[in-house]
Amino acid sequence: MSHLLAGLDIGGSKVLAVAVDITGPDGRARVVESVRLSTGLGPEGVVDTAARALRALAAQLSGDAEARPDDWFSGVGIGIPGLVDAENGKITHAVNLGVGPGGLALADRLGRRLNLPVVVENDVNAAALGAAAHLRLGRVDMAYLSIGTGIAAGIVLDGELRRGPHSAAGEIGHIPVDPTGPLCGCGQRGCLESVASGSAIAARWTSREGSDLPPGQDLFAAAEAGDPTATSLRDEVAGYLAAATRLLALTVDVDLVVLGGGVAEVGEPLRHAVANALEAQATGSEFLRGLDLSARLSVVPRDQPVAAIGAALLARTPPGSSIPEPETVLQPDLTA
Amino acid sequence: MSHLLAGLDIGGSKVLAVAVDITGPDGRARVVESVRLSTGLGPEGVVDTAARALRALAAQLSGDAEARPDDWFSGVGIGIPGLVDAENGKITHAVNLGVGPGGLALADRLGRRLNLPVVVENDVNAAALGAAAHLRLGRVDMAYLSIGTGIAAGIVLDGELRRGPHSAAGEIGHIPVDPTGPLCGCGQRGCLESVASGSAIAARWTSREGSDLPPGQDLFAAAEAGDPTATSLRDEVAGYLAAATRLLALTVDVDLVVLGGGVAEVGEPLRHAVANALEAQATGSEFLRGLDLSARLSVVPRDQPVAAIGAALLARTPPGSSIPEPETVLQPDLTA
Repeated sequence: MSHLLAGLDIGGSKVLAVAVDITGPDGRARVVESVRLSTGLGPEGVVDTAARALRALAAQLSGDAEARPDDWFSGVGIGIPGLVDAENGKITHAVNLGVGPGGLALADRLGRRLNLPVVVENDVNAAALGAAAHLRLGRVDMAYLSIGTGIAAGIVLDGELRRGPHSAAGEIGHIPVDPTGPLCGCGQRGCLESVASGSAIAARWTSREGSDLPPGQDLFAAAEAGDPTATSLRDEVAGYLAAATRLLALTVDVDLVVLGGGVAEVGEPLRHAVANALEAQATGSEFLRGLDLSARLSVVPRDQPVAAIGAALLARTPPGSSIPEPETVLQPDLTA
Repeated sequence: MSHLLAGLDIGGSKVLAVAVDITGPDGRARVVESVRLSTGLGPEGVVDTAARALRALAAQLSGDAEARPDDWFSGVGIGIPGLVDAENGKITHAVNLGVGPGGLALADRLGRRLNLPVVVENDVNAAALGAAAHLRLGRVDMAYLSIGTGIAAGIVLDGELRRGPHSAAGEIGHIPVDPTGPLCGCGQRGCLESVASGSAIAARWTSREGSDLPPGQDLFAAAEAGDPTATSLRDEVAGYLAAATRLLALTVDVDLVVLGGGVAEVGEPLRHAVANALEAQATGSEFLRGLDLSARLSVVPRDQPVAAIGAALLARTPPGSSIPEPETVLQPDLTA
């Protein structure tokens, strides 16, 4: 049995597969190889792409195009959007992947095809575990706030994923925050997702001529350059993300909120804008100042494939799992 | 050692002490005796009142005015408002009790005086445990939404209190829900507490002439009687409490929200109004309809001193505890 785990982050356009080594002396998950493929759609397409990605990963590791994944990995973890039944390894309603209400028994089908144990998890939850492991948070309570096409939080309490009895834990994207806001895809008005996600930004900001940045990054660059419209929209979005942070702190209560997802490619300027908004909101409130939320904010490093890493870590343990190896709790430098 | 536990619910005006028997054949916490006293204020007053209440309880149980509490109880649990350090049995900033920033080492002082182990918990958390035990929820995830002078939720996950690393879990009263709402005591504007608590109702509704009901109950009675102003205010408050329920479902995710606190003396009409508001909010949203929140709402029975019972149950186990005896999980009739 190999000491390597495979993690897949399956998105609507691409699949990222990583081989992860967790046997290093520092106990850290180390990515030793990675592969990126275009995603095939529909139940068949998804299973095929995952299998191809794992074969390609084994081939890269071995230098042998015919290498078998089950010779190279002890388990496979998959992070995938949509409604995920982690216990049974099934997904349904993954619209971007062409998987409808009929669903896909992904763990079972891929596992049989490759003769490997496969676990499946919601991509935001997988990313939360990957971010917690990367930041070496040990058993600290944290939330990974994914700001991408949609908005959702992955919640890790005492090192364990909090899924909730209705798999609705962290579904904060559909909490209304602006009664006069746009109609959300979920049928409500002014949901967090409809005012602060990557899609919400794209609906209100077109990347400047000559810019090859996606709208979120271009918005922050334009604001940095002094464009007043950009500054105003950036601050509005940051205000909503600050509200999201406060929501997490005053419901589930976490030590740390890690900003992630496509919009977090902005990096440190995103953390800075949200921290500023948190401080502005706390100006008149001793209660909020006492929570010191702006100091408890972090942004996921751009170069870390946290969803794929988190998925790989899930493959260490049976479905319904946790960050498997308790690590030394280091207080990360949150302002760095 | 006695098989009885003592539970105290210490409020700003009165202290309720109960003697609880947990050795019955059905495993249920049974209140066998109770005492109600006026609360003495200040650190000294609080300790004195608690000691007097426990002596009175022992006297009632024994028929001997000189009976010693440590002959009658194996432990004492206290539910109390303010900032509670459950681990060390200390309280601070309990303004209504005249306990300031200097604090009060309540567990230590009362324990020494009576020669008994004492645990201390926030009153809303104690009530959450008491309500979960009363409803025989076993290890179901639930939130107890206390609607009294303020608003806060006690969260019980898998039978354990969720306090959070900053003791801020469930502090949803200070989540802003109306940007144009009144200034809240916490310094923010339009907090849930400032628009839907008992105090918020009292600020907007004066009990009708001849009514001896408190404002919340009178408001619901007037609405029931067809008063259009009352109906409108009732529905507005119910809408905010529905938003609170949705907040809990989409952050921490619980199976059941139990309405409690002073305003829940209204009883079934309160549950009905909030359930109606949840259904109205879900009208346009398949997503919300799928969560079926209106069916996952309950109201604490009027005659159950859940905070005192929950406090007593905490005395079964060391501080930082849980509902100690896993009970058979019965699905309560939530609509009853």
